[in-house]
Amino acid sequence: MKISKDTNILIVGLGLIGGSYAKGLTKGGYKVNAIDTNKETVEFALQNNIVEKASTEADDEMIRNADVVIFALYPHIFKEWIRDNQSKFSPGTIITDVTGVKGCIVDDIQNTLREDCEFIAAHPMAGCEKLGIQNSNEEIFHQANYIIVPTEKNTQEAIELCRSIGEALKFNRISTLSPYDHDEMIGFVSQLTHCIAMTLMTCNDSDNVEDYTGDSFRDLTRIARIDEVMWSELFLLNKDALLHQMKLFTMEFSRLERMLMEADKAGIKEMMRHSTARRKLFDKEKVVD
Amino acid sequence: MKISKDTNILIVGLGLIGGSYAKGLTKGGYKVNAIDTNKETVEFALQNNIVEKASTEADDEMIRNADVVIFALYPHIFKEWIRDNQSKFSPGTIITDVTGVKGCIVDDIQNTLREDCEFIAAHPMAGCEKLGIQNSNEEIFHQANYIIVPTEKNTQEAIELCRSIGEALKFNRISTLSPYDHDEMIGFVSQLTHCIAMTLMTCNDSDNVEDYTGDSFRDLTRIARIDEVMWSELFLLNKDALLHQMKLFTMEFSRLERMLMEADKAGIKEMMRHSTARRKLFDKEKVVD
Repeated sequence: MKISKDTNILIVGLGLIGGSYAKGLTKGGYKVNAIDTNKETVEFALQNNIVEKASTEADDEMIRNADVVIFALYPHIFKEWIRDNQSKFSPGTIITDVTGVKGCIVDDIQNTLREDCEFIAAHPMAGCEKLGIQNSNEEIFHQANYIIVPTEKNTQEAIELCRSIGEALKFNRISTLSPYDHDEMIGFVSQLTHCIAMTLMTCNDSDNVEDYTGDSFRDLTRIARIDEVMWSELFLLNKDALLHQMKLFTMEFSRLERMLMEADKAGIKEMMRHSTARRKLFDKEKVVD
Repeated sequence: MKISKDTNILIVGLGLIGGSYAKGLTKGGYKVNAIDTNKETVEFALQNNIVEKASTEADDEMIRNADVVIFALYPHIFKEWIRDNQSKFSPGTIITDVTGVKGCIVDDIQNTLREDCEFIAAHPMAGCEKLGIQNSNEEIFHQANYIIVPTEKNTQEAIELCRSIGEALKFNRISTLSPYDHDEMIGFVSQLTHCIAMTLMTCNDSDNVEDYTGDSFRDLTRIARIDEVMWSELFLLNKDALLHQMKLFTMEFSRLERMLMEADKAGIKEMMRHSTARRKLFDKEKVVD
């Protein structure tokens, strides 16, 4: 089962990610409706032909007509929204999401949801430091990873459908991880990096540092502009995995500190060689599906 | 005193930075000769018209004819090179450099150098993870900072001459710092960031992480490809300042760790707001001279 040009897709939440989904799917020729409580957002989406129809309310007909619902809002609203609106779903509706943490959410949603509908979790690993539909851009997905996060409750059909959404949005790579593995990985590559960028930005309040920075500092702190509502929630929802990754980082950082204190040039060089060799694996050019 | 089209400029060391200096100055219409012990490098520079003349040896005539000598090699060779070759300088020769640490070097060189010549330190804050003249590109300077690092022994004339080199290379911003302030600042914005990138790259050896990374992780580890010979030397030459910055970072990182453990959402949000506000100062667009 794949999405087709006849599939009624409903996006709930037209922020940066929801808006970029809407743009990508609409440009791909798919039928997209949307719900967002913000009037300006809805008007913007309609005026710019990002969606066919849009509503500021959880519109009964729009929800009933949806074959696929993509939830693109803050995690804590997700369960609530499902509880309040699931009576409007037609039987067989597939629900997916874009949430950045999974372990604490997927079971909850799957247990809350009506038995004749199915929730399949997904995580588009893309973003931008600027928020809102005004900054949405489907191209942020083209070099990015799309991760499907099924549980044993999911059907093969739903996983395939979810994959077809990733394909329609032209993600560079589509893969599958369990909720646990997903959260460990996200704790490392996404949340730990945000913790580091924030720390670097706040650990030294010297004046005029900005006058002397090179690209290294700018690169390491790009993500230090951070939406505190979203990210404080994501950090706390993934607290254990994130604390584990912070521990690993701190241990290695202390090791480097000790080598410096002891002027252990050979040890520092060895760590640099390890770092250089491992970084080569991450070159974008090499990431092919 | 400024460099002019008649100034004989000699660059010692045609690596990434020396090569980029040569390209920028030659394109600007200046007379550039160079010395590099590597035969292929010299041939590459001549074949590509990056320099007028080049030699693999510390050529007597080339050194005697130079009005300005720019030293662009590893710090530990600098003092040695000055000692071995300063008898060849003509009186009044100005020597400058591109070295990334200053406190431990500037006094040494100024004390070693003949009294009728002058050394004025400078630091072009630009680089690239790829090394060698083959990757040199004068455009790496156009958005970058050029820092002149004078001591009380320097003349106003030499400082002006040094500034005119920065101008000829079209640096975005030219400023002046004392060796101590320079090294503290570099310990923070450049060396600490490299320590963090290396640590991030080596603290978690999970397989296949590269399959799931987004741009955040790539940005934070771009500089994890690091030349171990150059950087281990720079770290150890600036050990005290770097260890101080690592300490500041670790303290703030631990504070965030504690807030997470205690689920102190308000505290985490406050740190995120601080980070976001401070990061705005560092937007490149805003950096004007």
